[in-house]
Amino acid sequence: MTHEIPESDLLRMARDAARDAYAPYSGFRVGAALLAGSGKVYTGFNVENASYGATCCAERIAFYRALAAGERTFRAIAVTGGRPGETETDCPPCGICLQVMREFCDPGQFLILLASRKAPLAAFLPFGFSLDDSTGSV
Amino acid sequence: MTHEIPESDLLRMARDAARDAYAPYSGFRVGAALLAGSGKVYTGFNVENASYGATCCAERIAFYRALAAGERTFRAIAVTGGRPGETETDCPPCGICLQVMREFCDPGQFLILLASRKAPLAAFLPFGFSLDDSTGSV
Amino acid sequence: MTHEIPESDLLRMARDAARDAYAPYSGFRVGAALLAGSGKVYTGFNVENASYGATCCAERIAFYRALAAGERTFRAIAVTGGRPGETETDCPPCGICLQVMREFCDPGQFLILLASRKAPLAAFLPFGFSLDDSTGSV
Amino acid sequence: MTHEIPESDLLRMARDAARDAYAPYSGFRVGAALLAGSGKVYTGFNVENASYGATCCAERIAFYRALAAGERTFRAIAVTGGRPGETETDCPPCGICLQVMREFCDPGQFLILLASRKAPLAAFLPFGFSLDDSTGSV
Repeated sequence: MTHEIPESDLLRMARDAARDAYAPYSGFRVGAALLAGSGKVYTGFNVENASYGATCCAERIAFYRALAAGERTFRAIAVTGGRPGETETDCPPCGICLQVMREFCDPGQFLILLASRKAPLAAFLPFGFSLDDSTGSV
Repeated sequence: MTHEIPESDLLRMARDAARDAYAPYSGFRVGAALLAGSGKVYTGFNVENASYGATCCAERIAFYRALAAGERTFRAIAVTGGRPGETETDCPPCGICLQVMREFCDPGQFLILLASRKAPLAAFLPFGFSLDDSTGSV
Repeated sequence: MTHEIPESDLLRMARDAARDAYAPYSGFRVGAALLAGSGKVYTGFNVENASYGATCCAERIAFYRALAAGERTFRAIAVTGGRPGETETDCPPCGICLQVMREFCDPGQFLILLASRKAPLAAFLPFGFSLDDSTGSV
Repeated sequence: MTHEIPESDLLRMARDAARDAYAPYSGFRVGAALLAGSGKVYTGFNVENASYGATCCAERIAFYRALAAGERTFRAIAVTGGRPGETETDCPPCGICLQVMREFCDPGQFLILLASRKAPLAAFLPFGFSLDDSTGSV
């Protein structure tokens, strides 16, 4: 259990979100389900762009939706991704998304759930960059 | 009128959204209110990051929220921004946001509303980059 | 002539640069050749990333190389792009690159050269976002 | 020693590069010195933008310069940063830069040198996202 929501439910919500991804360039569909401090879940999928640099990942979109809804604390995020028909493997967040998580989450507490493993943010980004404290989060 | 919603209402919603911006680094708060094809409005504010490159603008967040809610067509976006206490001036979308609009909007039809002017996307990004057609949108 | 360098030379340098692009995901190779205030030319090509959002375009890389070499004023940039074997068409800069050009260039003076047309930056990004003056550049 | 170049020299080159950073918005100047497979060193500094999301970090600019010069293998990068007059502390690369390093470097071999510590890329980004293999690099 991740607090009130079973982890398997959070992963399922991420998988469901991935179905609607806007991924015409890569064909790689990613879904995310973010459990906020309030207990509500916010989903996201990747939104690609003809100029690849303007692409946004599923994880960040889940964060932006939660922040826009007033959330400021976060407990866990489930992330799944792949091409339709492929066997599911772990799809870890990219560095950009880890950087956004670092801005809002406690690295030792915030959990990242992948298809077959889970670990706190600090395990994914042990020495995060921040402007307050640039000496790493662990 | 922008379809069902008066333009002044869309601008007011953008101004309201800006109040909750996460802008600890610039102090510059931007709000956006996006009128989708369904007639619903999706708001956004800027979400900055210690690594400035991981910052996301208000306009893109409004789009991501709308896309995540299933919208795929868009009519207009109102954008306002500034530092608290400053007189409001026009705050045009940055190039990154224009690039994201270009992916989903008809450049001749999609309207951008600023505090004191309005024009279609094509007036802001006359020769947009896309992978289908790289010869400009006008 | 763009100052000392014929425009056709600048376009040729852009085409040459595109050959070495790191574009394993899109197969779309872009090249840029930037004429700086000193009269020197700096080239760039697109560098893609598995996380599409971490991709950088040819135009920005040309600017970063020039800035790192000490340049602070710019005259013109030639941009070409396409997939190998395709007929060349105009490849206008994306919004992100236009935003970077806006930071360093005079919109009315800085020239953008495409395969079959040329125009100043102001024609590509008429109402640019800046923090000093958010009322547009034209 | 990092191969031919002493680590202290690489750090000094990073510090020197930081002096010319274009950081009018944050005042936070970062420098990077990248040792490529050829034995050559490529420096970079941060280049900010009025639209914070269009900012590029020192580390990525060092990579783009090296890639543009034909390098495709990399050994180590030194990174330093801070505000003028502050005591130097470790300035770890942000997630975006780690993601770009992940595209071109062997996570177990590529060294990241900070003011007071060093570790391979794998220690900074243990479970990196890539499109070939999304199961982590360690």
